[in-house]
Amino acid sequence: MGTHLGELDLGDAIGKNYGDAIYTNLENRFLLLEPTIEDRMMKVRRLTQIIYPKDAGLILLKTGIGPGMKVIECGAGSGALTIALANAVSPGGKVYTYDRNERFLDNARQNVENAGFGESVEFKHREAQEGFAEEDVNVVVLDLPSPWDGIPAAAKALRGGGRIASLSPTYNQVEECGERLTEHGFVFLETVEVLVRHIRVSRGKTRPHDRMVSHTGFLTFGRKANSGAPPPEDPAKYAAD
Amino acid sequence: MGTHLGELDLGDAIGKNYGDAIYTNLENRFLLLEPTIEDRMMKVRRLTQIIYPKDAGLILLKTGIGPGMKVIECGAGSGALTIALANAVSPGGKVYTYDRNERFLDNARQNVENAGFGESVEFKHREAQEGFAEEDVNVVVLDLPSPWDGIPAAAKALRGGGRIASLSPTYNQVEECGERLTEHGFVFLETVEVLVRHIRVSRGKTRPHDRMVSHTGFLTFGRKANSGAPPPEDPAKYAAD
Amino acid sequence: MGTHLGELDLGDAIGKNYGDAIYTNLENRFLLLEPTIEDRMMKVRRLTQIIYPKDAGLILLKTGIGPGMKVIECGAGSGALTIALANAVSPGGKVYTYDRNERFLDNARQNVENAGFGESVEFKHREAQEGFAEEDVNVVVLDLPSPWDGIPAAAKALRGGGRIASLSPTYNQVEECGERLTEHGFVFLETVEVLVRHIRVSRGKTRPHDRMVSHTGFLTFGRKANSGAPPPEDPAKYAAD
Amino acid sequence: MGTHLGELDLGDAIGKNYGDAIYTNLENRFLLLEPTIEDRMMKVRRLTQIIYPKDAGLILLKTGIGPGMKVIECGAGSGALTIALANAVSPGGKVYTYDRNERFLDNARQNVENAGFGESVEFKHREAQEGFAEEDVNVVVLDLPSPWDGIPAAAKALRGGGRIASLSPTYNQVEECGERLTEHGFVFLETVEVLVRHIRVSRGKTRPHDRMVSHTGFLTFGRKANSGAPPPEDPAKYAAD
Repeated sequence: MGTHLGELDLGDAIGKNYGDAIYTNLENRFLLLEPTIEDRMMKVRRLTQIIYPKDAGLILLKTGIGPGMKVIECGAGSGALTIALANAVSPGGKVYTYDRNERFLDNARQNVENAGFGESVEFKHREAQEGFAEEDVNVVVLDLPSPWDGIPAAAKALRGGGRIASLSPTYNQVEECGERLTEHGFVFLETVEVLVRHIRVSRGKTRPHDRMVSHTGFLTFGRKANSGAPPPEDPAKYAAD
Repeated sequence: MGTHLGELDLGDAIGKNYGDAIYTNLENRFLLLEPTIEDRMMKVRRLTQIIYPKDAGLILLKTGIGPGMKVIECGAGSGALTIALANAVSPGGKVYTYDRNERFLDNARQNVENAGFGESVEFKHREAQEGFAEEDVNVVVLDLPSPWDGIPAAAKALRGGGRIASLSPTYNQVEECGERLTEHGFVFLETVEVLVRHIRVSRGKTRPHDRMVSHTGFLTFGRKANSGAPPPEDPAKYAAD
Repeated sequence: MGTHLGELDLGDAIGKNYGDAIYTNLENRFLLLEPTIEDRMMKVRRLTQIIYPKDAGLILLKTGIGPGMKVIECGAGSGALTIALANAVSPGGKVYTYDRNERFLDNARQNVENAGFGESVEFKHREAQEGFAEEDVNVVVLDLPSPWDGIPAAAKALRGGGRIASLSPTYNQVEECGERLTEHGFVFLETVEVLVRHIRVSRGKTRPHDRMVSHTGFLTFGRKANSGAPPPEDPAKYAAD
Repeated sequence: MGTHLGELDLGDAIGKNYGDAIYTNLENRFLLLEPTIEDRMMKVRRLTQIIYPKDAGLILLKTGIGPGMKVIECGAGSGALTIALANAVSPGGKVYTYDRNERFLDNARQNVENAGFGESVEFKHREAQEGFAEEDVNVVVLDLPSPWDGIPAAAKALRGGGRIASLSPTYNQVEECGERLTEHGFVFLETVEVLVRHIRVSRGKTRPHDRMVSHTGFLTFGRKANSGAPPPEDPAKYAAD
């Protein structure tokens, strides 16, 4: 295998363990490492913007995804978040990931299979407005240009108290999304953005990096109240403060 | 049960579903909601600073924790991160959580049991310097005033390529920690801080909140190269850029 | 003078210099210090939100305010920014500050006079929509709930190439303001937010503060093209990138 | 004059006013605009990192620089901050700017003269450790790899209550600088970093930019107590909180 540091004979890896080194013909060292979820997310073949680990990590904890759960993701994008979701519902759970773009869906499927999570994910070629086939799901994650296209379907698919997460790059989407969520009975709405800053660490010269990713998207979270429950009188009181 | 909105009769919840409402004697509505991992983390009884979901989420993805894995956490603190780790290794995995302070350990155990994760966690009353009893573990997470106290033990307990994460509030700890990690054969070191900013969303008046948590701690990540592997010539090249 | 550290006899300051100490009856030390512009801004009696030094500093440099210039400010608020503007146009320049609220205007006048800048400022009780009395001004600063109320008047009062700065807490205001500025011939529009993070510095324990002010407002800047100049074909190309 | 949009005949500008347009031979429009202080700072010929307007603006307000003041700057760098300081002390004040690198100093002088501020600035080729020639100065600004090299000289040159500002990219410099400032009688120490985030504004699609400058440097501010004044018992109490 050609690398910028010389030729690597992958046969050298046979009999080695994770953490061991193999060498190129130029004596440059490569380490054999088990990929993390972050590695698998960042290495997908990208046909779309992907959801970054900084955002995916908070989504997992705020929606409370765990083994055995049923999760809907719409759209699939390049499958990066799908991988994190699949890892979190394993074993026994399932991720149903929708996309209206067949080429994206095929690429996402390939990426998820390459990451070893193919069995935990079902790929569905469908528009959000057509509704989701699943019921009683624990969590719905929306990553749509018009997230409100998926909100009615999400409200229907979620079990009572189920969690929704929506990702959007613009303020306008966040504002519209918040209103639609309230209309469809979602409560405890919360919108945040996550910033990750890298630090250059070296003895006597430690400092933040010069540049950073400033914005990927806003994350909006909510929970589904059952339709029997009366609507909140003042939606504003659910705004996080 | 007394609340600031009136008396709540928890018997009313019998026969209800998640997402349903029950009412106080003052007709104020409460929703029955399944707690998320974030809820469980934030609701622990605190004898120490806790690790927040924003940091825990990134730790999960960057260390690649999944079902069936063995994870060491040192120290236990109040058990908030322990809950997130236990959820991620379930089922089949185990979190071994160490603390030298018996009172903290007892509190953490109680918090983890209350959250329903008692079976996935072993609590150990021991100093980091005395070493960890486990071998071949996938991930070690250090949350220590002197993280370097746990680095030799971590290097020994981790399998080849295993991941380490260390949390520290000061840059001084980060700097020292980075050097010790390099000395003990850890590579691909990366230090970040995670900032979460809340957005106030309301029609025509959407804006970031006035105030935010600016700093909880720096997160340092690394991977263990096996001892047979030669030390890197230039540690600086592992600094994230 | 009573303080929480004891009684201070201000007569003790006679014959002292800046940088000298005087003492309370409890032997607690106070330093005699010349107030900075920041001190003067932060010490105004507040009837409104004030504009903070972090924002005022960038406004000064981006609008290029210097001695002898004519600057319009609308509204006056509590006069904090007025002080910074007055210092920057001195000597020989003038700040014309408008407010429709007479009580705010009186308070701002008192604050500006207390800060020693009364001679450089004219206070005007008028709505932005009624227009500004001045012509050929160098800079207009708008701090209005509906900044667009002041944009036509600003376009008229500014000399060619004159600079405008507008402060608004919400993204909705920013979006509307940007469109109106384009309609009125303003070009090179740029919107930013300024965040200041405090660092706790102490030997071996240096780290960012736990909490920070996350948001005061967005700042929008632009420059006035003369009316003879054709409108830009694609307003989007003026968006900062 | 050749531009990427065609040939511009600068003679066309004769008789025009600021805010007017002139056109290239390809009919592309250029506006005649009076440069702001930010423009002048950003357009210097750079032989060094420059200090950005975001940092310079806060320095001006926190050190309280105004017309007629005496300010020492060490080192001169490329003269960008020098321009902002010169504008702020005008008229009647003076900036004394030191650099040990003659080539930098010559470049800074050329940049400051091009910006029209040559008369307000004296350029001095000298090391900080050799001391400053001025006395009773209002403000000293240090931009040195080892800021402590300039602290004894700053303490000597400043009048009682005079302000110091020091810029440093690393945490280590900040920590060391803080200790030295305390040793030399500086009080009310405060360290901050300033972040500026650009917003992409367009109807229905407003959002923060994807990337930003994350770090230029930390700013440390302090004030000089006279030597007769006793040292503070607990330097930590001056840490900003």
